[in-house]
Amino acid sequence: MSAKNEDGAKHMTPEQFRRYGKEVVDWIADYHERIESFPVQSRVQPGEIRAGLPAHAPQDGESFDAMLADFDRLILPGITHWQSPNFFGYFPSNNSFPSILGELLSSGLGVQGMLWATSPACTEVETHVLDWLAEMLGLPETFSSRGTGGGVIQDTASSSSLCALLAARERATNFASNEQGCDGRLVAYTSSQAHSSIEKAARVAGIGSANTRLIDVDDRFAMRADALAAQIDADRKNGRLPFFVSATVGTTSSNAIDPLPEIGKLCREHGLWLHVDAAMSGTAALCPELRWIQQGIEFADSYCFNPHKWMFTNFDCDCFYVADRSALIKTLSVLPEYLRNKATESGAVIDYRDWHIPLGRRFRALKLWFVIRHYGINGLQGQIRRHVELAQQFASWVAQDSDFELAAPVPLNLVCFRHKCGDAVNQAIMDRLNESGELFLTHTRLNDRLTLRLCVGQTRTELGHVQNAWARIREMGKAVIRPDRS
Amino acid sequence: MSAKNEDGAKHMTPEQFRRYGKEVVDWIADYHERIESFPVQSRVQPGEIRAGLPAHAPQDGESFDAMLADFDRLILPGITHWQSPNFFGYFPSNNSFPSILGELLSSGLGVQGMLWATSPACTEVETHVLDWLAEMLGLPETFSSRGTGGGVIQDTASSSSLCALLAARERATNFASNEQGCDGRLVAYTSSQAHSSIEKAARVAGIGSANTRLIDVDDRFAMRADALAAQIDADRKNGRLPFFVSATVGTTSSNAIDPLPEIGKLCREHGLWLHVDAAMSGTAALCPELRWIQQGIEFADSYCFNPHKWMFTNFDCDCFYVADRSALIKTLSVLPEYLRNKATESGAVIDYRDWHIPLGRRFRALKLWFVIRHYGINGLQGQIRRHVELAQQFASWVAQDSDFELAAPVPLNLVCFRHKCGDAVNQAIMDRLNESGELFLTHTRLNDRLTLRLCVGQTRTELGHVQNAWARIREMGKAVIRPDRS
Repeated sequence: MSAKNEDGAKHMTPEQFRRYGKEVVDWIADYHERIESFPVQSRVQPGEIRAGLPAHAPQDGESFDAMLADFDRLILPGITHWQSPNFFGYFPSNNSFPSILGELLSSGLGVQGMLWATSPACTEVETHVLDWLAEMLGLPETFSSRGTGGGVIQDTASSSSLCALLAARERATNFASNEQGCDGRLVAYTSSQAHSSIEKAARVAGIGSANTRLIDVDDRFAMRADALAAQIDADRKNGRLPFFVSATVGTTSSNAIDPLPEIGKLCREHGLWLHVDAAMSGTAALCPELRWIQQGIEFADSYCFNPHKWMFTNFDCDCFYVADRSALIKTLSVLPEYLRNKATESGAVIDYRDWHIPLGRRFRALKLWFVIRHYGINGLQGQIRRHVELAQQFASWVAQDSDFELAAPVPLNLVCFRHKCGDAVNQAIMDRLNESGELFLTHTRLNDRLTLRLCVGQTRTELGHVQNAWARIREMGKAVIRPDRS
Repeated sequence: MSAKNEDGAKHMTPEQFRRYGKEVVDWIADYHERIESFPVQSRVQPGEIRAGLPAHAPQDGESFDAMLADFDRLILPGITHWQSPNFFGYFPSNNSFPSILGELLSSGLGVQGMLWATSPACTEVETHVLDWLAEMLGLPETFSSRGTGGGVIQDTASSSSLCALLAARERATNFASNEQGCDGRLVAYTSSQAHSSIEKAARVAGIGSANTRLIDVDDRFAMRADALAAQIDADRKNGRLPFFVSATVGTTSSNAIDPLPEIGKLCREHGLWLHVDAAMSGTAALCPELRWIQQGIEFADSYCFNPHKWMFTNFDCDCFYVADRSALIKTLSVLPEYLRNKATESGAVIDYRDWHIPLGRRFRALKLWFVIRHYGINGLQGQIRRHVELAQQFASWVAQDSDFELAAPVPLNLVCFRHKCGDAVNQAIMDRLNESGELFLTHTRLNDRLTLRLCVGQTRTELGHVQNAWARIREMGKAVIRPDRS
């Protein structure tokens, strides 16, 4: 690792960049071609990667060749291969070559898009592409920038949920919380199956976990609108101020879809802000026949989904929409002198720094623009349909099997299932398969039983990968319950 | 823009990626070679970029050639060139080829680093490189992961300040705010010259602007420790609970450096959390002779600076350190079943999702590792010294000029100055220079007078660029006050 950079303290020249850049491009192409040769889950032990790195930073510069060699030798063994077609864990974080090229151009430009004025294209392409997407998904026209709302790219759904909750807090208190701080009266609602980021957002925003009601779910793990109504009534009777509901289209645990029409009507009736978190599953609405998942979305004050999960766009790219952008901007805007400029004061432009927590922002819309243009609407629909179909096939195999059972409805691309012999067997199946490196699964608990999750969404997952996964899962199930025959 | 992608709905192949990837690498190298040929500030009008884009997303996929051609034709005119050596506005957001290559590899891998288990190398390289950096900057050993603290990469200093304030809030209330929400008693402190993100963080966290004291500054625009002490006493007497001070090493407006030793002692005496925001200027501490800027840093509970500003690392890369990681983790951790895993439960690993707001995270440490290794400590010191020296030379020219004057001390790489003939003249100088496209400056207000800011920090800014900037500023000053002779 000590090969000295002959240029010492100098910048890498454009000529060197051409050479090394092309090597890295080839490295990435090679990586994707050989990705199935790696164990999906990294096998390193805690501390193993650090142990291979020098204790101190180098005094003198090193050559790029040495860095790339170390990357191969020291880093790659510590990678869990999220882009492998045999990765079925958590949620997809799928990627595509057009997206990587968009991100690369963004890095090359190195512009800051905090204000319209700091690079107008960075803002305008983002607004435009998010309008495209709203139309592609069949979202209400209020979410378009041509109406009262608009979209913005955030890093993650966690951040979007926080911003939604903050705008709701301010709308409910006539912007007094921003000024005076929270006073403990506000109450937020989500389901017991909602993502942990909702509770985290409530903590961050000074609402508190104890004032975040986790509403019961039905036997499909979807929020019970009657339980929500009862809780809102009870809170009102106790002098509390209900202000925010986060409903989920596709929970992380089991892909449950909350009943937006019923929840939305309650929110309208009581003046609550409705946020809809469709982090992974929202992408499915690209296909008209799957658009039923967002029925009732017209009641939403805000909505988010992540092209960086299931739309071939590399992290980070969460799309956050609001129906009333003025509430969001008024909540998050603080304008110091050094950021004042004529375009902002004209009111004719969007300054995205007022749409989220960070000030700085890079040109993330480029990769999304490239992805949409490369695939086209038809191409994206085709990919999503294929993933859903593969998951449905897997679910049908599970349903017909004598050892395994489905643990939840399978509306889209996530299958929750379990071996019938209990938690220890399911844990052993998952652990041994993951240790094998052949595929990667994760788990959840449903009705207090350990449940395996198989999520289809990696860019290059095909029928053969899902067939192989099922064969290996079945075999492992038999090996675990009859160890003598394994 | 309608050249059809012949592959229709298909993925880009590795072979196509090799070809287009190399074209993009060449595009970026060409861009940096010709960057001085563009007007630094984009000349487009609001709406102009959007007007060039089709109203609807394409139904069918398009070719990459068409996308790259549109990028050149439609996007480039809307770019303000932050990487131009003639960009002296705001703060630097400097970049380097090794950083771009690190970001590219990160995109290619496409891994999620939310937990150690989801890609161990992503976490371990980050922890390791942030330990390197703490040593390189001469930060206290408490900030190292080997001690009680540690570092994490956040997107921006805004987010780091928010996390610091949240951990402080919880420490001050024994973690009751997370549970019960805020109750309006807490009071935060920063200077009237601090970044707007501190007030934004106080709003977000449920503390409120009215409970965020903007402490007076001295004639160097640094926080007055005596005024801070008096305000803390007054608040205590009124039954309030002071809990947090954010001090700045290098304010955005004028690069003022708050007196950390005095502020730190007050914080210790009163049990307040001290956060130090050194977003741009922290990098200077790489040079031992400039390390005086962080004198008193041993009193800090948390600290952040941005390699994505002045350390050749492309956005986003803010390094956030805490002296007691347990307070931060306890503040931000919510662990749902679907994220449980053996490594987390062993306690032997860091799960960075508990160190910030977002859950997902990409492998940002790669680019930082590449930058440090490419330049080495000596190389980074050389670049920083050069930038500081250039700013000092510019300041000396201003000080000797009869038309212009310095408006604030110049400790590092930011020069605040003004024409002696008042606000209208300064505004006209800035507007006309920025419209010329030859260089880019921004402004602030100091002592209620419009003040020009010239910040030296772009990767390839050399003496000639600064000399030229000064010549153009002087000429423009003369032209503005004697328009007949211009």
